[in-house]
Amino acid sequence: MTTVSDLGELGLLERLRPFCSKDIIGDDAAVLALPPGQQLVVTTDVLVDGVHFSDRTTAPFDVGWRATAANLSDLAAMGAEPLGLTVGLSLPGQTKVDWVEGLYQGMAACLERFGGEIFGGDLCRSNTITVAVTALGAVLPERVLYRHTARPGQAIVATGYHGLSRAGLEVLLQPEAWAQVPDTVQTAWIRAHRRPIPRFDVLPLLQAGLAAGLAPGQPTAAMDSSDGLANAVVQLCRASGVGARLEQSQLPLHPDLVCWAGAERAVDWALYGGEDFELVLCLAHDLAQRILAQLGEGAAVVGQVTADPSVQLCNSKDGSAILLNPGQEFQHFK
Amino acid sequence: MTTVSDLGELGLLERLRPFCSKDIIGDDAAVLALPPGQQLVVTTDVLVDGVHFSDRTTAPFDVGWRATAANLSDLAAMGAEPLGLTVGLSLPGQTKVDWVEGLYQGMAACLERFGGEIFGGDLCRSNTITVAVTALGAVLPERVLYRHTARPGQAIVATGYHGLSRAGLEVLLQPEAWAQVPDTVQTAWIRAHRRPIPRFDVLPLLQAGLAAGLAPGQPTAAMDSSDGLANAVVQLCRASGVGARLEQSQLPLHPDLVCWAGAERAVDWALYGGEDFELVLCLAHDLAQRILAQLGEGAAVVGQVTADPSVQLCNSKDGSAILLNPGQEFQHFK
Repeated sequence: MTTVSDLGELGLLERLRPFCSKDIIGDDAAVLALPPGQQLVVTTDVLVDGVHFSDRTTAPFDVGWRATAANLSDLAAMGAEPLGLTVGLSLPGQTKVDWVEGLYQGMAACLERFGGEIFGGDLCRSNTITVAVTALGAVLPERVLYRHTARPGQAIVATGYHGLSRAGLEVLLQPEAWAQVPDTVQTAWIRAHRRPIPRFDVLPLLQAGLAAGLAPGQPTAAMDSSDGLANAVVQLCRASGVGARLEQSQLPLHPDLVCWAGAERAVDWALYGGEDFELVLCLAHDLAQRILAQLGEGAAVVGQVTADPSVQLCNSKDGSAILLNPGQEFQHFK
Repeated sequence: MTTVSDLGELGLLERLRPFCSKDIIGDDAAVLALPPGQQLVVTTDVLVDGVHFSDRTTAPFDVGWRATAANLSDLAAMGAEPLGLTVGLSLPGQTKVDWVEGLYQGMAACLERFGGEIFGGDLCRSNTITVAVTALGAVLPERVLYRHTARPGQAIVATGYHGLSRAGLEVLLQPEAWAQVPDTVQTAWIRAHRRPIPRFDVLPLLQAGLAAGLAPGQPTAAMDSSDGLANAVVQLCRASGVGARLEQSQLPLHPDLVCWAGAERAVDWALYGGEDFELVLCLAHDLAQRILAQLGEGAAVVGQVTADPSVQLCNSKDGSAILLNPGQEFQHFK
């Protein structure tokens, strides 16, 4: 199998050229026009071999898809539509050219589905495969979704099931431990892990609801749940100077996850598993109900924004409540 | 000394926050407005520990400066002014927090001097320190400088001395071999390596010359010389479907470099050393002369664009000529 050393940098660039925007690459930098009146949205995510993916759990196509989807999800969380991305790729010389092409195929497939092009990037040698993606998007100024605009009394909506990506990773890492889970369920979990879906479909629903006057004078706050549902709620609350009451029975848990992983683990993975790439929204109740009716399965009102700054997970069945502080859960350097 | 593991991701983010744009960070992505009527310019460069820098030759401040300057230089080569950048930073847990702060100080100092802010980025764990920078700039559509617009008969201008960055690296790697070089010269070479200067100062000169009608109907082609002067000329020629005749006696060699490294090595480093981050321009002769008069020391007309597609280095003293094909010189994966 040909390696990137065999091919050299120029040869590899030649192979990757077909994946890139024909009109834009070939200069020191890419030049692009922003749609009139729109603001630029920019976000960067880095995926590292052995940390965010490995050959054991993720084919190169899926690494490309996930790197792209993770960035696009950040754009969706800002209310923006994708323009495209740049790729800073660091590779060991012994990396297979097939692996690199698979990576780009995955990125191209994700962009094909959600919009945007590859504007170029940089290619360099390293001991560790590192995929640094910067995505650019555009949004009308009045449609930007921030984190700091949540208000007491608003509903907190999760746009889909949580915990499935983590379940997929567990199945990939320890297949024997999950052998009793039906194939169709395993496949769905693995797909959730490998091919996350940035929720751009939520944006027109939100705009339509706002246009219908369902949240007069109330801005919607939003964040994606890439670091888990608990982290998203805590970050939204901190940025807005508010708190939240989540209701455990309302957490968006897939019935299969509860059935096969157990209720306790399902709650844990939903709150802290991460990489579900759903949106978490704080918005007026009427608007929330309208959007939920359109989003379908998995989307739910998971709780309510409170003036009290604590973030609690309440269990209405036994009247208990615990404080959520996900600080330790995403300390990636530990 | 505190390491990033000691501090954890959140603690480290807290330390880096003061370096970032206060108005822009804190969401899933940064939102920014482009100056009215301008186009967006975007470029990505990745620096890898052990490949592009090492503790032996480059303090963290200088890594930050160079990562920033390399990206800004690409913006300058497109005719654009900087808006700012995102940083995708991968770090081993044992990295010193001081090192990371030094890196950001270097980036901030470079942005302070040339314009732009840090819009945020991503922080993650890795075995290898990797600094992936994506820089954003803005330019009026009619002022974009491309590579593909060089025309036969145009002058080829290098905006400053070449080879000094490579000389600085050599001094850092083998101080004993260069012990006889005076301290002031060593210091200048090392500075060229550690603190390259993106040539934004060339842009207003170019605009003024164009406004004075010095190149009617003739677009200027441009590229930066990050991979060496030879590579820049070859790339410009390939993109434009033209060739070039460079004159060896006109190469922008600093007298100190010729004196202490020898004429042959000086030519080699100027052509292939790389990382000088000057601009290479193909433009009308009148415009070239006007700009040269303003650029001062080091800037030179190094040759002429030809219809013949070969790129030759001619020596008018002995009448010899060699073909330049820098293909092998930047095969980073070999």
